[in-house]
Amino acid sequence: MNRLLSIVTATLVAVSIVVQVGRFGDMPQFFAAAIAIIPLAALMGKATETIAAHAGARLGGLLSATFGNAVELIIGIFSLHEGLTSLVKASITGSVVGNLLFVLGLSFFVGGIRHPIQEFNVRVARSNASMLMLGVGVAFVVPTVFARTAHPVSSVLSFGVAGVSLIVYLLGLYFSLFTHRDVFAYIGHEQEEAQGSQPRLWPAILTLAVTTVLVSVESDWLVGTVRSIATQLGWSELFIGVVVVAIIGNAAEHASAVWMAWKNRMDLSVEIAVGSTLQVAMFIAPVLFFVGVCIGVPFNFMFTWPELVSMIAAVLLVVVLMLDGESNWLEGAMAVGAYLVLAAGFYSLPAAAA
Amino acid sequence: MNRLLSIVTATLVAVSIVVQVGRFGDMPQFFAAAIAIIPLAALMGKATETIAAHAGARLGGLLSATFGNAVELIIGIFSLHEGLTSLVKASITGSVVGNLLFVLGLSFFVGGIRHPIQEFNVRVARSNASMLMLGVGVAFVVPTVFARTAHPVSSVLSFGVAGVSLIVYLLGLYFSLFTHRDVFAYIGHEQEEAQGSQPRLWPAILTLAVTTVLVSVESDWLVGTVRSIATQLGWSELFIGVVVVAIIGNAAEHASAVWMAWKNRMDLSVEIAVGSTLQVAMFIAPVLFFVGVCIGVPFNFMFTWPELVSMIAAVLLVVVLMLDGESNWLEGAMAVGAYLVLAAGFYSLPAAAA
Amino acid sequence: MNRLLSIVTATLVAVSIVVQVGRFGDMPQFFAAAIAIIPLAALMGKATETIAAHAGARLGGLLSATFGNAVELIIGIFSLHEGLTSLVKASITGSVVGNLLFVLGLSFFVGGIRHPIQEFNVRVARSNASMLMLGVGVAFVVPTVFARTAHPVSSVLSFGVAGVSLIVYLLGLYFSLFTHRDVFAYIGHEQEEAQGSQPRLWPAILTLAVTTVLVSVESDWLVGTVRSIATQLGWSELFIGVVVVAIIGNAAEHASAVWMAWKNRMDLSVEIAVGSTLQVAMFIAPVLFFVGVCIGVPFNFMFTWPELVSMIAAVLLVVVLMLDGESNWLEGAMAVGAYLVLAAGFYSLPAAAA
Repeated sequence: MNRLLSIVTATLVAVSIVVQVGRFGDMPQFFAAAIAIIPLAALMGKATETIAAHAGARLGGLLSATFGNAVELIIGIFSLHEGLTSLVKASITGSVVGNLLFVLGLSFFVGGIRHPIQEFNVRVARSNASMLMLGVGVAFVVPTVFARTAHPVSSVLSFGVAGVSLIVYLLGLYFSLFTHRDVFAYIGHEQEEAQGSQPRLWPAILTLAVTTVLVSVESDWLVGTVRSIATQLGWSELFIGVVVVAIIGNAAEHASAVWMAWKNRMDLSVEIAVGSTLQVAMFIAPVLFFVGVCIGVPFNFMFTWPELVSMIAAVLLVVVLMLDGESNWLEGAMAVGAYLVLAAGFYSLPAAAA
Repeated sequence: MNRLLSIVTATLVAVSIVVQVGRFGDMPQFFAAAIAIIPLAALMGKATETIAAHAGARLGGLLSATFGNAVELIIGIFSLHEGLTSLVKASITGSVVGNLLFVLGLSFFVGGIRHPIQEFNVRVARSNASMLMLGVGVAFVVPTVFARTAHPVSSVLSFGVAGVSLIVYLLGLYFSLFTHRDVFAYIGHEQEEAQGSQPRLWPAILTLAVTTVLVSVESDWLVGTVRSIATQLGWSELFIGVVVVAIIGNAAEHASAVWMAWKNRMDLSVEIAVGSTLQVAMFIAPVLFFVGVCIGVPFNFMFTWPELVSMIAAVLLVVVLMLDGESNWLEGAMAVGAYLVLAAGFYSLPAAAA
Repeated sequence: MNRLLSIVTATLVAVSIVVQVGRFGDMPQFFAAAIAIIPLAALMGKATETIAAHAGARLGGLLSATFGNAVELIIGIFSLHEGLTSLVKASITGSVVGNLLFVLGLSFFVGGIRHPIQEFNVRVARSNASMLMLGVGVAFVVPTVFARTAHPVSSVLSFGVAGVSLIVYLLGLYFSLFTHRDVFAYIGHEQEEAQGSQPRLWPAILTLAVTTVLVSVESDWLVGTVRSIATQLGWSELFIGVVVVAIIGNAAEHASAVWMAWKNRMDLSVEIAVGSTLQVAMFIAPVLFFVGVCIGVPFNFMFTWPELVSMIAAVLLVVVLMLDGESNWLEGAMAVGAYLVLAAGFYSLPAAAA
């Protein structure tokens, strides 16, 4: 499995390098880089998990929770460096909306086809729901709304949002890994990791290092061609950020969340989908803000109305879906349906309005 | 009972015809048509129920769930045909707000006077709550908000919204009538329909046919005088659509939902009020969109801010009221109070702003 | 305890009088008055409680629920009298946001440090959640949103909002003190008031009378210097109202809510924080509207967008936090974090935009 994945990855990276060096044009370069990132992200994820497993439950949980979405972080840094701040915000929006509605929805739907009603830890669900309300419903709403009154977002507010989100996110990790670990236990599978021998540590670290470098290179190529692609296809930058880049950055999570749902391990599915969302909103977004401060690119938390409203609608729908600690296929269909409506909305935005 | 209703209906229809033929003026014509529609709707509802009972539980459930609000559909088609698209949207708003706040609120209140705490199936309530979040909180919000950025609502988005709403609504019927029928069982009344002999099928079909024709005729008259009424009374078209037309179209449901609550059958009350809302938002609205496409009237899902915000406020309040599967008279008073605030809001809009 | 408090109060009032009479300048006058109000409010609260205890459970509950926030009411009346309607609305916003996020959050946090999971009556929590949705999510949203379409808020709408809020608030008292008293019982402490002898009635009435007069005088001084302070410090009137005045008016409640949480009596904590919010939104705001009508100052329920959005975000976050009837320190951290984001937002507004 791992070997096959490595071969596929190497091939796709090679293709992408050839396309890039041979200057085949922006369109092939964009798609070759996009496709190569998907298996690279999967490899990075596996390597992170292996290292986390060796690090023990708590440090490991911390590792996954901070480096689990490294691909988004890398793409974000390259986009910032290019000055594409609206692309960064669009891909944050896409991660939030895509993870909450598409990944979670598909998991509920696919799992629900096999199991009439699936359960997950209701306390974790409620804690996640509250976190979403803070990390999106307050932290993204306040700068966007207040900035309509006081035109530029003040640095006090930006630092406030970034600081509060980051601190509460870290407190949340401390809560779930230390003070309230028992409350956050999974439902109904005792020792989930005990299947077969664990992969060794050093190859994982090597893999992580190599894939990180390759993801960085591919991200640079991907981001460098976004504007030209937007013009050629008549898509808005918002659509590319919200739908295309978000799917690329999250493809690996998509697959494993759905797979876990199929195996009736909904706790893991929900953790992947919602945990990923919280990580992007409350860890990656603040880190990108501080990176922006350091490299002198003014990045704030002011979103466009379509972005903000999409995220809030996604959060509120998912909060109502999750609060009971149960799922079924119809709930999955609702979430996927909501995702399709939002995707149609972003597709329909004029390219100029990006 | 049925005979008395028939006589009342015939009388009111006759009056309305006289008023219409004699050209008594717009005001009498409007109110005569409006009053005649109320008992016609009740007769249509009874006939549909009888046919549904003969069709068996599943096909019958499907029938009620698709033709239960035929009056709104007919009024909507005539309004579209007159080009009154803003009236159609106003009466959709009125159905959503009126059913959720006024009908459900009055049911909670009246039932709660007799029974301190009333219960209903909490899983059905949660499923309905999620559906409301999708059918109103996403499907109506996205076109309205996105269209402020990209001025006309694109046809991709309109087709997306109509298609998704309709498909998820039908999936919801499949879910509640087939795959998860046991989950959706009612609380505490075993065989509710076994009281007395069932009315015969053919008279019901005949009644349905005749009332449908009559409702169509009266709707035509009603809709034809709306603009003139709005001018004469100084009411906005929004107020007429949201309050007046919505009350006319839903009067019969109002009565039976409250009656069921009084008899402590809250499951039925909630089903009538919330089911009706979902039917209007996720079945009638999309069907009217497709009708508009066919007859060449551009109908989209872009609401005015007062309409959109009213629907969202109503949905969020009712979601919080319903999620616990319990009701009491104070919850009813809250919902009715919210309805009165909204009605005062629509009443206060200037006639020109419609 | 009471004696110490009286001495502190007398000293601070004396200082404030000296500063005022000696015309030490607006800045000292503002802060001297602000600081003197805090212990006065505490004394008023204790006196009200004593009188309430003598009045018996029901009449006493009614007393606390209507005069518990007398300080806000007095400051509000003086602000109205000065024509500072935007300051009144800002301090209503501050009470809602401060009580829900800061007071409740700090209570959850401090209590949660000592007790891993704290419980409170879930039915009360749900009833409060619904009331918040009505009193803020409908009653404040509708005038603000509708007035953007129909420029001035019509008097029909204002009277509707004030009337409905006040009536439903009183119905809520009737519900919790009479018809559903058993449902609203506290968790796990049988006879909470039976500790020691009750203070006597007449001194309490005297205290209430004297402190009311003193609070009125200090409020007059406080309000009279607000505009000059805003100019000198470069703060917006919104920031002063939302953060400074709201903290002054609620300091006493803050302390006792947190203290109750520390003693694991979360029912009382939640009642103080959420009950205070409801009282301000559904009792004090309508009363101020009617006072405005009487004294000819046009006061309506149209808030600025930052105010409205802050209140809605606070309500939705707290509804999600409360609905499960449980709290922990992380939930407290989330609420306090949300408060800091909002405070940073109001701080960042330009002084001119007030």
